[in-house]
Amino acid sequence: MTYCVAIKVNDGLVLASDSRTNAGVDYVSTYSKMHVFGTPNERLFVLLTAGNLATSQAVVNLINRDLDDLDAKTSLNTVEYLFDAAHYVGELSCRVQRGHAEALRESGSSAEASFILGGQIHGRGHDIYLIYPQGNYISASPETPFLQIGESKYGKPILDRIIRSDTPLNDAARCALVSLDSTMRSNISVGPPIELAFYKKDDLELERHALLDLNTPFFRRMQRRWNDGLRRAFNGLPRFEWERD
Amino acid sequence: MTYCVAIKVNDGLVLASDSRTNAGVDYVSTYSKMHVFGTPNERLFVLLTAGNLATSQAVVNLINRDLDDLDAKTSLNTVEYLFDAAHYVGELSCRVQRGHAEALRESGSSAEASFILGGQIHGRGHDIYLIYPQGNYISASPETPFLQIGESKYGKPILDRIIRSDTPLNDAARCALVSLDSTMRSNISVGPPIELAFYKKDDLELERHALLDLNTPFFRRMQRRWNDGLRRAFNGLPRFEWERD
Repeated sequence: MTYCVAIKVNDGLVLASDSRTNAGVDYVSTYSKMHVFGTPNERLFVLLTAGNLATSQAVVNLINRDLDDLDAKTSLNTVEYLFDAAHYVGELSCRVQRGHAEALRESGSSAEASFILGGQIHGRGHDIYLIYPQGNYISASPETPFLQIGESKYGKPILDRIIRSDTPLNDAARCALVSLDSTMRSNISVGPPIELAFYKKDDLELERHALLDLNTPFFRRMQRRWNDGLRRAFNGLPRFEWERD
Repeated sequence: MTYCVAIKVNDGLVLASDSRTNAGVDYVSTYSKMHVFGTPNERLFVLLTAGNLATSQAVVNLINRDLDDLDAKTSLNTVEYLFDAAHYVGELSCRVQRGHAEALRESGSSAEASFILGGQIHGRGHDIYLIYPQGNYISASPETPFLQIGESKYGKPILDRIIRSDTPLNDAARCALVSLDSTMRSNISVGPPIELAFYKKDDLELERHALLDLNTPFFRRMQRRWNDGLRRAFNGLPRFEWERD
């Protein structure tokens, strides 16, 4: 399983992913699910992947091949809008899935993969897209300015409470970490390290791309403070009527 | 959809359920998903239901019919252990499902329902059981002393953090309310009012059976305090290294 989240705020983008993959419960490994593409000062794309690992790796390979091929009709270098890029990734994904779908179906598996694409092209706005296994895609809304793929439910309540379009970028990043931490506590198939990408709007390159091990003092401090803060919030809840006598 | 949670602590049991049911998105109604059975000073059962409403209603009807029938070979009045009661409910559920499974499958639906049964029989311990649609069942563990059915993921992180076997009963009830509140915020198919049952061990009858409307001053105060407490916890998280200059 996987958990990836992308947040679009007025100041820019935050994208975060875990790094655990598993085939069944007895073959667990660590893979990056965050892939960065682009040309500084021109365009920047961050792709998050969930679902069938062979499909998502093949899509990344095809993206890179098209980038190498200066005659390619479409590549992340040629698209004019971010939604063109989402469309392109969706097409690659469908093509890869079609190649293996029947064989996988026969063995009871699925070739499906989902993607989140975030980024900006010079002269356009920054944005995030969720690309479904069927190749279609949606962007986030101003009211719910985040997208999730993979094991998304455990980590959604805190995003629902905190994230707004005017949330500062660093707060959005902290919220993504809390969301991932909650998910890792509740589902062992989502695991460290956490990759975190910061994009300040109009920079056209990543400001930061951090790999956070759970054993870093920062991450441990964050987990402890969050846990303590939640307990304090819990202990501050009103008593029931019948507890007052 | 539905969300029900049962918590077993040393002092007793807390069971909570939402009240929303829906067929598609355009037929939404309010049904109780909590059913109480028993004989004071002798035995007490609380049944929570999720899944196909026709199945769970039929199971409750059959339980009541068996209770009325003094010659019934098995009923909630005759079982000797709580796991016998879980087994009995599982058998009723399978029987009801079999009667409609084929017709429902043809129309692309499912007759499946899940149950949580909590309670105590005189002379035995208090306990909770989750009864799967297949009729088999599990109890909670001392390390994870809660069970959930329905839309369980949004509300699990707070249970994971707070609930232990030695959690006081009123704290367990507050935690169940927070868990339900988080779920209702993230999934509109889970909705009010909330039913809450308190059982103090060895009482052999319910101490309280409350129906909480979201508009009560208590519930509003709880939601506000929890929201404020979460925000305070979030604002207290450590700054990133690069924020310190």
